[in-house]
Amino acid sequence: MKPSIQIIKIGGKIINDTTLLDQFLQSFNQIKGNKILIHGGGRAATAFSERLGLQVKMIDGRRVTDKETLDVAVMTYAGLINKQIVSKMQQMGINAIGLSGADGNIIESVMRNKQPVDYGFVGDIANVNATLIQSFLDQHLIPVFCPVTHSKNGQLLNTNADSIASAIAKAMSQQSSVVLKYCFEYNGVLENLEDEQSIIQTVTKNSAREYIASGVFADGMIPKVENAFKALDAGIASVHICGIQHVHEDNPGTSFIHYNEMEQ
Amino acid sequence: MKPSIQIIKIGGKIINDTTLLDQFLQSFNQIKGNKILIHGGGRAATAFSERLGLQVKMIDGRRVTDKETLDVAVMTYAGLINKQIVSKMQQMGINAIGLSGADGNIIESVMRNKQPVDYGFVGDIANVNATLIQSFLDQHLIPVFCPVTHSKNGQLLNTNADSIASAIAKAMSQQSSVVLKYCFEYNGVLENLEDEQSIIQTVTKNSAREYIASGVFADGMIPKVENAFKALDAGIASVHICGIQHVHEDNPGTSFIHYNEMEQ
Repeated sequence: MKPSIQIIKIGGKIINDTTLLDQFLQSFNQIKGNKILIHGGGRAATAFSERLGLQVKMIDGRRVTDKETLDVAVMTYAGLINKQIVSKMQQMGINAIGLSGADGNIIESVMRNKQPVDYGFVGDIANVNATLIQSFLDQHLIPVFCPVTHSKNGQLLNTNADSIASAIAKAMSQQSSVVLKYCFEYNGVLENLEDEQSIIQTVTKNSAREYIASGVFADGMIPKVENAFKALDAGIASVHICGIQHVHEDNPGTSFIHYNEMEQ
Repeated sequence: MKPSIQIIKIGGKIINDTTLLDQFLQSFNQIKGNKILIHGGGRAATAFSERLGLQVKMIDGRRVTDKETLDVAVMTYAGLINKQIVSKMQQMGINAIGLSGADGNIIESVMRNKQPVDYGFVGDIANVNATLIQSFLDQHLIPVFCPVTHSKNGQLLNTNADSIASAIAKAMSQQSSVVLKYCFEYNGVLENLEDEQSIIQTVTKNSAREYIASGVFADGMIPKVENAFKALDAGIASVHICGIQHVHEDNPGTSFIHYNEMEQ
């Protein structure tokens, strides 16, 4: 049997709120065995950009990372947020090690093609060094990744945290049985955003199509669902979208599965 | 025979200047065997503090690290500077890993006593995890330390880079023969600051006393010289203050020795 590993991603809203972050870390601390944390950016970069008087440039709802924006991203993601989370985890007795993709060349990216849209210093992941990640785990270190990677030609690159989580999950799934959990402020994917209890327990490819058609899955949820199924297709054993206080549970929040027994 | 290791510290002036940093890294790259880099803060923190409108508070010529100053230090030291150096090293084929003291609980500090002077969030080093550093070296990773450590109770702390270099040197000297090189913009300690050729080849405790009495060693040089002798006393095999392009040499710049043969 392959060894198992849990790969957990948390987004900006959790990072921005000390109470939520503490609740999450308490749940994370209860996960037994090997685990990895990936955190997103959060409000700090935007707040610092504003204080520095930088203009936030958006194309089609996506932020453009110019040189100064990249510097602020590296400072806040790899510096402030990553080290604050690591020191909090150390306080809880979790032996965390903060990492960007540049450290140990652990995640190599390529700068996104400038055509059709130039998003600036944004990286698409080319390679994950699963051997090095495994060797950290074998030393009882808990890797904590920030959303910054690098090209091997000396360029740091802003990189989507969801993409980092699924790329690490895929790389680790060669040797391990991987559970991937995207953790956010709700306790699962909601059928009705007004009702926090309306958690969809399981999503199949068929039901996902229906939820998208009926508008239940919209906006930011669609790429998350697509990511989840891509991860399943790539051999990740189990994919979930769940709340911060349930991340240590076996099947928290919404589980993604290829087919329902009913559908077969 | 103990294995040997070189521990190199670079200061702010080198970090601030891309040309100097590149020259240094080329020399660093030529060092054979195990090596560790420690970098100081540089101008970035001050520049960002100014842009953010923070007041730089000084007591007796030493900066006071309040909460906001600490955040800027963590962002620039652990984030921007550390990751830029690591990605440059990766480009050169040096498998660097950037570290703060919080990562892997590798350097634990205590917040400096608020009496007689409250310097704020400044750490004095309590423990260095030499075993973890050695395990990174054994994996052919080159540790790159920024001047940020942590207390085990969740607090990040601004920490003097010279102190980190000598603390790591002392910790590693239990198992290794350690060469400690403080690298700066001159090619050694100068007898006459106006003459860059006036390098003092060796400094003994006796000659140091004389240089201090005659004013040749003044201001920032005195604590550096004191640090060098403390390191020698603590069992570090060899201590040097040298220039950026000579760091790979066996006896670069100024060497610190206990006694001259003449003196014995």
